[in-house]
Amino acid sequence: MTGTAKLLHEGKAKQVYATDDPEVVLIRFKDEATAFDGKKRGTIEAKGPINARISSILFTYLEANGVATHYLGTAGERDLLARRVTIIPVEVVVRNIAAGSLARRLGLAEGTNLELPVLELYLKDDELGDPMINRYHVRALGLAADAELETMEEAALRVNALLAAHLEPLGLRLVDFKLEFGRTAAGRLLLADEISPDTCRFWDVRTGEKLDKDRFRRDMGGVEEAYREVLRRLEAGQGG
Amino acid sequence: MTGTAKLLHEGKAKQVYATDDPEVVLIRFKDEATAFDGKKRGTIEAKGPINARISSILFTYLEANGVATHYLGTAGERDLLARRVTIIPVEVVVRNIAAGSLARRLGLAEGTNLELPVLELYLKDDELGDPMINRYHVRALGLAADAELETMEEAALRVNALLAAHLEPLGLRLVDFKLEFGRTAAGRLLLADEISPDTCRFWDVRTGEKLDKDRFRRDMGGVEEAYREVLRRLEAGQGG
Repeated sequence: MTGTAKLLHEGKAKQVYATDDPEVVLIRFKDEATAFDGKKRGTIEAKGPINARISSILFTYLEANGVATHYLGTAGERDLLARRVTIIPVEVVVRNIAAGSLARRLGLAEGTNLELPVLELYLKDDELGDPMINRYHVRALGLAADAELETMEEAALRVNALLAAHLEPLGLRLVDFKLEFGRTAAGRLLLADEISPDTCRFWDVRTGEKLDKDRFRRDMGGVEEAYREVLRRLEAGQGG
Repeated sequence: MTGTAKLLHEGKAKQVYATDDPEVVLIRFKDEATAFDGKKRGTIEAKGPINARISSILFTYLEANGVATHYLGTAGERDLLARRVTIIPVEVVVRNIAAGSLARRLGLAEGTNLELPVLELYLKDDELGDPMINRYHVRALGLAADAELETMEEAALRVNALLAAHLEPLGLRLVDFKLEFGRTAAGRLLLADEISPDTCRFWDVRTGEKLDKDRFRRDMGGVEEAYREVLRRLEAGQGG
């Protein structure tokens, strides 16, 4: 990519650049880390390249298992190529174990196993603090068509089953994760954004050690090492 | 009712007493008012009798239109007779106009008309501040069976359509309301609790004046008068 590539969008953790192909974008992963809707800020060394690589591995795995994603391939060490989409401002969260805001909100001890996966929708809006919404809000606010939302929910539950099955043998328990979806110009719905320790909670299966952004949120230290460990296990999983 | 009737349950606004019939309870409406999960407390003069009467009129109307409710009849001036149920700890809220917590949460101006009714579920738990939940939480926490929740949602939307149609000609706009449902010993699902200015927002159709508990929550004065006015209009509607 040349230095003159047009920046289409800058988020908290990524930049999106135009490419020669109007339907393809380059996604650059930043080292900057934020939490609590941007109220906490910092840098995690090498986070960009690590998360680009983790996302690449997980999007490839999901595509191979029939999930339609925006992922096209890698470019630079912190860059992915992806189909250009308009992000739907509804974050889809799936949880297998109570942690973070769910544990607080429902008064559950962190680590409580959920009998069934819990799917939640959040309005992607930092100023409002990403409030929880439901399908009626999505409809009333015109955020997505009913059929799109249904596809998103089904895809999220399928991603949960696929990821959990893939990660468990690598010693990573999938506690919860957040997905974003987007529409191509042609109206096709694709899983977009990233899948990384920034957007998932991973706990070591044996020790329960946190290997995700909670180490940054909670000032636990060893953040970069944890992200590297997730990547190391995923790469080991590819070798198998 | 004798002075020795057994108190089965005491809530913030009502007491529930046993009767000679194990399947029937007497519900006594108190004058005490609370808001913000019990953090604000006060008394609204004559609220008990007014809300008992309003609930009686509205339950009778809904029953006549095919909604299964716990309502059986009136007893004392602040007492209703009702089928005994176990309350399902899921509050169902339906909103036609943005107000209160929805307006705050989604950054909408109070009074914004919602294109479609918005239905929300809340966990009935004062200590947790009645957090918003969705059907996945209901399932994971085992609060209600899928079929029960579906029946509750359908009933709530039907109640919304019926109440709005009944109240509008009486000059009352139904902004939003909260319903609770319960199960009889035989497992039958019934609309329960109360329907009153404590649990609904009513705005005067012409002036927009608030005729509900927001007058208490927001220290607007004229609380008793507003509740009386709602009752006056409902009684006028019965005469028609």
